[in-house]
This record gives sequence, C-alpha cells and structure tokens, in this order.
Amino acid sequence: MTEDAFFARLFARLPAPDSSWVVPPGDDCAALAFGDELLLIAVDQIVGGKHYYLYGPEAASPEAAGRKLLARNLSDIAAMGGIPTACLLAGAFGPRRDPAWIERFYDGIIALARDYGVAMVGGDLASTPADEVASLTILGRVEPARVCRRNGARAGDVLLVTGWFGSSLETGHHLTFPPRCREGRWLAEHGYPTAMMDVSDGLLLDASRVCRASGVALRLDPPAVPRRTPATTIAQALGDGEDYELLVAVAPDRIAALLAAWPFADVPLTPVGEFLAGPPAIADSQGKPLTACGYDHLA
Amino acid sequence: MTEDAFFARLFARLPAPDSSWVVPPGDDCAALAFGDELLLIAVDQIVGGKHYYLYGPEAASPEAAGRKLLARNLSDIAAMGGIPTACLLAGAFGPRRDPAWIERFYDGIIALARDYGVAMVGGDLASTPADEVASLTILGRVEPARVCRRNGARAGDVLLVTGWFGSSLETGHHLTFPPRCREGRWLAEHGYPTAMMDVSDGLLLDASRVCRASGVALRLDPPAVPRRTPATTIAQALGDGEDYELLVAVAPDRIAALLAAWPFADVPLTPVGEFLAGPPAIADSQGKPLTACGYDHLA
Repeated sequence: MTEDAFFARLFARLPAPDSSWVVPPGDDCAALAFGDELLLIAVDQIVGGKHYYLYGPEAASPEAAGRKLLARNLSDIAAMGGIPTACLLAGAFGPRRDPAWIERFYDGIIALARDYGVAMVGGDLASTPADEVASLTILGRVEPARVCRRNGARAGDVLLVTGWFGSSLETGHHLTFPPRCREGRWLAEHGYPTAMMDVSDGLLLDASRVCRASGVALRLDPPAVPRRTPATTIAQALGDGEDYELLVAVAPDRIAALLAAWPFADVPLTPVGEFLAGPPAIADSQGKPLTACGYDHLA
Repeated sequence: MTEDAFFARLFARLPAPDSSWVVPPGDDCAALAFGDELLLIAVDQIVGGKHYYLYGPEAASPEAAGRKLLARNLSDIAAMGGIPTACLLAGAFGPRRDPAWIERFYDGIIALARDYGVAMVGGDLASTPADEVASLTILGRVEPARVCRRNGARAGDVLLVTGWFGSSLETGHHLTFPPRCREGRWLAEHGYPTAMMDVSDGLLLDASRVCRASGVALRLDPPAVPRRTPATTIAQALGDGEDYELLVAVAPDRIAALLAAWPFADVPLTPVGEFLAGPPAIADSQGKPLTACGYDHLA
C-alpha cells in the first residue's frame, strides 16, 4: 500500500472533519475557516538515518537536521499560498545524543523560525531506546480566495515549476533548501495558480498527485525541467525526491503576464508541461508514458 | 535541565506568539482566539519501550499503544475545559513492525477518536532504523470565559482531584484510562475551576506546576488522595506518573455546591488540599515539605 492509499483509508474510517474544514486532508495542508481567513495546518517529521545521514562524511550537523524539519513544513505552507505563523514540536532522542546535540538541533529550527517569523506554541520532549524522530506541526494563514489546492488544474493549464530538480541528496540541497514561501505567496497573492503543491517525493510522483486530485492528464516535457547540476540526469530530475520546489498550474492566457511579472531573478519559474483532458496519467511530448518513480513512504 | 526549563528557554529564543494566542505555551494547551471561541492545540507523543512495553507479558497490544497516544492528548484538552475536535498524526515505525501491526495501532486511535468525535486532518508516516515514535497534535475548542489554566489558583482555594492515583503502570491504567473530558468540560461549563491541569507526571510534580504558575503554595493532605488499589502506597499515589486525572482549584465558598452537584457517580471528586499565600512549595498538614518526585522527561 502507498502512503497516499494508507492515509485515504485511515481518514475514511475516522469521523469526518466538520464543514469548518474547508480544505480537508489530502492537500499539503488542511485548512480551517478562521474569521475571514483560513488557518492552515500540517504535520511532517524527520527521522535520523532516514531523512539525514547519521554517520560518515555526509552526516548532518544537528543544526541542519533541525532546520530541515521546519523547512519541510514551511514548504507545505508555501504550497498553499499561505504565510507561516506558528509551530508545535515533538522531539524524541536516543542515548546517542547528548543535551548539547539536542540544543543544537533546536538551534537549527530557531534560526529558520526567526527568518520566517514562526512562533512556537507547543512542544514535547521524550527519550527513545535508540533512534531520533522529530515531528513538527505547522500553522499558517491564507485568505479563502487565495488558497491554492491540488485539485484545481484544468485541461489547457500550463504546469510551471520553481527552481531546479534532482540530485538533492548528493548536493546537500535536502538540508539547505530555502522553502518557497516567498514565491508561493507571491503567486497566490496575484491569483495565478489554479493548483499548486510542493515537490518532496519527486516531480513525477507529485505531479501525478495533482493530476489525480484535479482529474486531468499531463503532458510533460522532461528536457524542459531545470536540473540542479550539470551532472543531474533527466531521470534524476524527474524521480529524485527532496526538491522542495513548487508545482504550479496556471491558465494558458495568463502565462505571458506571469513570466513577465515574475519578480524573483534568483529563482527560475519554468513551464514544463500542459494539463490535458483525460484520466490522470503523465506522458512526454511523444505520448510515451512517464511512470512516477519518486519516493513513497510505504512503497 | 528539566523538560519545563528546556522548553521555557526554547520558547524564549523564538519569535513570541502574537496577541491572538491568548493562552501562550506553558499550559496543557495553547489557545488561539478563533471567532468567539478559542482554538486549543497541543502535541504529545509516545515511544515504544518508554511509554509502553515492547516485550514480555506486559507488552502493549498495538491497539492499546495507539489508544494511549490519543488519550494522552485528550487529557490535555480536558484540562483546559475544552471539547476535542480534530487531530494530526505523525507515526514512525521500525522494521520490528509489519503493516498489520501498524494498522492495528491506528485501529486503537480510531476507536477512541470515534468515541470522542475527533476527526483526523493531517498525517505523516515514516520508517525508522529501529524504534517506534508517534506524535499527535490535538485540536479543540472552548469559550474564552470557560478556558481553564494553571495560573488562576488563589490562596484559600481548595485543591480537588478526579479519580484515583498511583500504580498506573502495574495496573495497566496508563493504557486504558478514560480521558477526563466529560468531567473537565462539566467543571468548566459550570465555572468552578480557578485553575485546572491534568496529572501525567505525578501528582506532586504537576501540583507544583500549578503552584508555580499561580504563585501560591499548597498544603496537601497525602492520606486524602484516593489510591488506585489497596496495595498502592501514599508515596506511589503522590509520585507515580500516568494518572491522567485532573487537578482542580476551586474557591472555598463553592466547594459545598460543587460536591453536591457533581454528577459523575463513577468518578470521585476529592478535596486533597488547600492553596496558601507564599512561594510555590508543597507541604503536608504538619508543614513537612513534600518534594515533587514525579517523572520529568529530562531528569
């Protein structure tokens, strides 16, 4: 079973969120009606030895590991077009780590939290037999008219991506990436996205989720996808995880204006495909099926 | 450093929650102004081998382990006088566990979530090298006039407790306890508590937290504390953790009415002490200091 299927089954067995949850689970965040805004909320976690290296020359510094935990969550807020506001943090650490290491882990979170104006409103600390696992619940806000979901892409919309893809592990990008809050917020404020999500599990796999949620197919032009390094292959750009870039669907008649107005010279915004009518599937420009091969947590 | 001190330092280094957080971190939940209500939020976690036994005759069933995770969080909502509404769940499991075990772990959560009307609005699933760690963020609601905090106990107030104390591990209470949502809500609706919190780390330690937050001392009558079993000693009742009962401070002129009106015949509500003017400290009826010896997660 995939993680998607696992959670779909799980959510179906629980009491349904009431109607104040205007975005139910299944997007990067759920959203709760909150005065004249939406409260965004999501949870994500990192596990030592899974999301960062514990040993060897690539071992993550504690600051980098902590930073990654918050950064992954900020990326989920970015994908909704929102502004992060606060977080809750549960950390569980084993005998491998002394208090100084744990302190530095939190230092990494704090530095990024300051940069993004994120307060901390709850926490729990526990010990484990061996492993280290930390989860963070992120809160944010967004206007109901601006919230970006996965399910709004329409046939004819263009798929654009921020930044670069592939080789995230090899380059350390998975630890140092800047969450695209600025870019996601700008896109939402200007009303461009018909759908948006972040890419954490690989471009093809996450694009397939937009297709499924929106009920559309996608024609993708693999060579158009910006690659992180000269050595990054197209396959890596499509399949590696941990890019933490944004997938953005935009109506075709707005593309020229968007590309002309895009204000972030340091971050490319690149058209890479087009949504089409049809069952959720991805093919290249010659019609050859592209199978999602990204990272799924139960696969 | 204690967990309390650790988080106090951590929170101080982060951007402060804005004024919409009418209850900042430090209570059982934080609370965010939300229309004419408060949104309650807290996070708690369980770790296999720490919060439940992994091996031997006392090994927890997966359902019991999952149940405990949600129940601990419901207890935090109960302590605020609130009504639980929704949760987010991050689970990380190691190679010891097969998908069937994980499914049963979630079954335990689901059964209790149904009983308490709790929806699930977010989740993440990860694998670990070895351990199992699951964290749950709980959301709830409460009226601003009804929210119960730790900092409202005044000299002269009586300390009451729900239920029974001690021997939680030996009896399995730590897995099967009923979160006191019904009792906490009734107390809040009727405006009795000047302060309330749940007891998870031992009666003395948690009572000392009410004292510190409220700036009062406490005279406690140890023999008055209801004990879980005939074999439970007073020391166990005061020091064992995992009771998940409520500590309630109530003005003395309301005690008679409260005890007469208490509608829950199956759960005793017992006066066990009196708050006094003075620095935060606990003594028995003869003035002998009672030192908090409960479970602290960094001690």
